[in-house]
Amino acid sequence: MNFYTYSIRTQAEEFRNITPQVREAVTKSGVKEGICVIFCPHTTAGITINENADPDVQHDLALGLAHAYPELPGFQHFEGNSTAHLKSTTAGASMTVIVHDGHLVLGRWQHVYFCEFDGPRARTFYVKVLEG
Amino acid sequence: MNFYTYSIRTQAEEFRNITPQVREAVTKSGVKEGICVIFCPHTTAGITINENADPDVQHDLALGLAHAYPELPGFQHFEGNSTAHLKSTTAGASMTVIVHDGHLVLGRWQHVYFCEFDGPRARTFYVKVLEG
Amino acid sequence: MNFYTYSIRTQAEEFRNITPQVREAVTKSGVKEGICVIFCPHTTAGITINENADPDVQHDLALGLAHAYPELPGFQHFEGNSTAHLKSTTAGASMTVIVHDGHLVLGRWQHVYFCEFDGPRARTFYVKVLEG
Repeated sequence: MNFYTYSIRTQAEEFRNITPQVREAVTKSGVKEGICVIFCPHTTAGITINENADPDVQHDLALGLAHAYPELPGFQHFEGNSTAHLKSTTAGASMTVIVHDGHLVLGRWQHVYFCEFDGPRARTFYVKVLEG
Repeated sequence: MNFYTYSIRTQAEEFRNITPQVREAVTKSGVKEGICVIFCPHTTAGITINENADPDVQHDLALGLAHAYPELPGFQHFEGNSTAHLKSTTAGASMTVIVHDGHLVLGRWQHVYFCEFDGPRARTFYVKVLEG
Repeated sequence: MNFYTYSIRTQAEEFRNITPQVREAVTKSGVKEGICVIFCPHTTAGITINENADPDVQHDLALGLAHAYPELPGFQHFEGNSTAHLKSTTAGASMTVIVHDGHLVLGRWQHVYFCEFDGPRARTFYVKVLEG
């Protein structure tokens, strides 16, 4: 069924490069042409694709998102992590990538990231590969 | 073809839990392994996945998005709902979820939400289930 | 394999309507029922779906995103385009649309846009059509 589960331990806030796991799933599936769905089952985390060359990009992504979504006095959620829920909806819970010739089709500077917005935690993500 | 249409009536701004409809579509399709695409055909609304346990999360999502995207004097769109278009692009028009063993694969706290950013309106959304 | 590549030349910042190319890909594929994935292989650009009727909406999207993600003194990325990376993660690198009866299922006011956040550049995007 080409459905794979991965576990990671995250830091407080980080963009974890999970491209190796996603590539491994595609290889294991044996699918040559199709798509690959990466899914995050957590509501204070997400999946994004962004630059892998300069790690400062990840620093700046965290800084820019913190600026866009500051703590607000009107927040009511008792856990106090509403900004993480907002960042989760902004990055999104899933990402779909094309598979061609047995490989993920990513741009030269693109990697897939698990976005932790409320760590450190034990986290899981899923990879599903579909032929077609 | 496993393609389903649902209609809802929304309030001014709300995150409507549409997980029951999405689950129903998956069940109707009979698909055991595959993916499910939820699509919003409106440009001032969107689809997101976020926490279902505490309704205050939805309140805080609305508050945080309103802070990130305030009314700006430079907006030119004659309908006056540009902030809703911005929130629509942020949440996204579609969401893809994995189907495994005949069930939606969602995290313990995750539900699927239709995001209304410019209601109240009569709205539609689509669910497509793909086997593979 | 129903996998198509398109090239465009962008302006400094623009929302380029790529619906004609996406529709062409669906027609070429011959797929009647399925899904279509539009993927952007660049980290300072993205794909979104939004309103096509009033071009002022695109102006306001750019203005609102610039407000949400201003230049910050703490940015470290040496290329100086961190705001474009933030907008890329917000719009997202891919979008999935349902195909029904040989046509893209889009709402009346929806078009698919390639979002250029750091142009002008020569850019590429992919369209993959999956039957099912």
